[in-house]
Amino acid sequence: MAPVPTLSLPRAVDWSPTGDALRILDQRRLPAERVERDLRTVDEVCDAIRTLAVRGAPAIGVAGAIGLAVVVTPHARLAPAAFDRVLAESAGRIRAARPTAVNLPWAVDRLLASDARERAAGASPRARVLALRAEASRVLDEDRAMCRRIGDHAVALIDALRAEGRPDAAGGRPVHALTHCNAGALATAGIGTALAPLYVLAERGRTPRVWADETRPLLQGSRLTAWELGEAGIPVTVIADNMAAALLRAEPVDVVLVGADRIAANGDAANKIGTYGLALAARAHGVPFVVLAPTSTVDPATATGAGIPIEERGAEELRAVGDTATAPPAAAVWNPAFDVTPAGLITAIVTDRGVFRPPYDFAARAEPALVDG
Amino acid sequence: MAPVPTLSLPRAVDWSPTGDALRILDQRRLPAERVERDLRTVDEVCDAIRTLAVRGAPAIGVAGAIGLAVVVTPHARLAPAAFDRVLAESAGRIRAARPTAVNLPWAVDRLLASDARERAAGASPRARVLALRAEASRVLDEDRAMCRRIGDHAVALIDALRAEGRPDAAGGRPVHALTHCNAGALATAGIGTALAPLYVLAERGRTPRVWADETRPLLQGSRLTAWELGEAGIPVTVIADNMAAALLRAEPVDVVLVGADRIAANGDAANKIGTYGLALAARAHGVPFVVLAPTSTVDPATATGAGIPIEERGAEELRAVGDTATAPPAAAVWNPAFDVTPAGLITAIVTDRGVFRPPYDFAARAEPALVDG
Repeated sequence: MAPVPTLSLPRAVDWSPTGDALRILDQRRLPAERVERDLRTVDEVCDAIRTLAVRGAPAIGVAGAIGLAVVVTPHARLAPAAFDRVLAESAGRIRAARPTAVNLPWAVDRLLASDARERAAGASPRARVLALRAEASRVLDEDRAMCRRIGDHAVALIDALRAEGRPDAAGGRPVHALTHCNAGALATAGIGTALAPLYVLAERGRTPRVWADETRPLLQGSRLTAWELGEAGIPVTVIADNMAAALLRAEPVDVVLVGADRIAANGDAANKIGTYGLALAARAHGVPFVVLAPTSTVDPATATGAGIPIEERGAEELRAVGDTATAPPAAAVWNPAFDVTPAGLITAIVTDRGVFRPPYDFAARAEPALVDG
Repeated sequence: MAPVPTLSLPRAVDWSPTGDALRILDQRRLPAERVERDLRTVDEVCDAIRTLAVRGAPAIGVAGAIGLAVVVTPHARLAPAAFDRVLAESAGRIRAARPTAVNLPWAVDRLLASDARERAAGASPRARVLALRAEASRVLDEDRAMCRRIGDHAVALIDALRAEGRPDAAGGRPVHALTHCNAGALATAGIGTALAPLYVLAERGRTPRVWADETRPLLQGSRLTAWELGEAGIPVTVIADNMAAALLRAEPVDVVLVGADRIAANGDAANKIGTYGLALAARAHGVPFVVLAPTSTVDPATATGAGIPIEERGAEELRAVGDTATAPPAAAVWNPAFDVTPAGLITAIVTDRGVFRPPYDFAARAEPALVDG
């Protein structure tokens, strides 16, 4: 097997080489420029998350974890009560930088829970900082391993779906996949979630064929997904979001692969705006619609999609691209960043724990042995 | 009744004041600038149609008619055989400037048929030029009257659909409509096709509430529809194309109104890319999906949508907006300008002849008396 071209895969989020900063690849500048930025303060971390310099639910979680560890590091010599205040305030602000993805509060809370144990055991602020940094590194490492497991599970699922649905196509033809937004290497610390099976296929010498919705308004599909797949040598064709239904009619697409920012207990999945319409189009054409996300994206506290808060973003995102006006300056705009795809439209949900099929019951199928794909 | 604010409605296509040119409002410059251009040569006319300076199936038809009359006018003193050659060559080139809309060949062929009668009657090239100009003016006038009739028929239909489908909403609340692309004043010589009922409602003191898909890649919805509705004082909210399904879930939209570039004999309708996906979303939410177009858009020679040629446009439209790169320069792109919505997803088709309901039979229902909306 040829190794996956990991060298060309970007690192969306990582420690800086000296460990004193959160290093991100500034995704606002892609595909024009590849700019790395080192973030050291709460303001810088929150600003990067809020402005989508770092984005994608898993990457935001990792950024929150490393970011929190980084910003409290200079405070290791404070008295315990003062350190508590700095930690709580930093955690609170980072936790709230974006409202929809559950991974961000999940990662921050995980660091806080780890810290609470250290504190209860009588650790000094200095020891607590070291423990927080170790926990953030575990979040990072687990994210990479999570991506790999999702990729492996999803390839098995895709092969099973092809064998079921399009026996004619299950032969030599490469997997044909359509994806929305960017749930790839740029959205995680590893090989992505929705794009992970595509990298795994490429690694196995089965380079797939991919179409990427451009994903208005911020164009994560055409700017980011097309860029990272191209860097890895996977052929990708960009379409406007509104071409997806026509594409599904015109081409033998085997599967639609999307990420998720929050999955309710019943399987309803919040993901980038446009995912819901894409799921309707996939259903109309009988194309399997698969959601891929880390286990941390499943929010057992949210019963259904109706309980997921949807971030609305500013009108300016639809009024201009760069310096070019795309709408009258006074036009009203509705700009929800996410929508909810009902579980009934989702063929399967792949997490690092395996493949889930409807009716979704994430609690009951907690073991890798339950993988059925 | 307050008059419709026609003074603020733009003239997309008209004679220049002296009659020696085709005057268009250059839609590539909107909404940033309102620039009128006078076109006098076949190259200028074809270029304006090809580059979408003038666009919208009805407006293209009118532009083809006036354009052809304008470009042959300087040749009125040629010998008949030489005039024949100029006319045939000009007509052939204008006719082929864009492939999908049937209105363009329809308008050109109408002028040629009119000319054939003059020629058979022994008219001189000079008289034939005058007759061609008169016929082009009739095409223009009929387009304006067509828009008005579509608007009147469609308001009756919308009121009937509201009474059927949402009795609670048929009371005082303004009509809530979603539209795609631009089938408005800018797409015709009059008050538009899909937008015509919205202007008629405003005229009757029932100003509607409108959402406009931005319509990638050329943004005719956000640039043109939002601009012309705003000029007329009709409240409009811009959404990205991929937000339509979420909108239909979130808001009590009464009707989706779209134009058409070609309608097959069975009711399958080619319209701006994205219309098909929008129709799927409307169907999923039980929202009536109405196609509005002049009779000339119905092509009896095309049995079904499968027979409609779909123009594919250049990759650069998806690789940049203005000077801003929106995709890697090397990314492959699929960029069909239109898609076909199957008749089964269309609640009704409104033409200047009335309202057609499925199963569509345009030949059998050729009389205004057959209006049932």
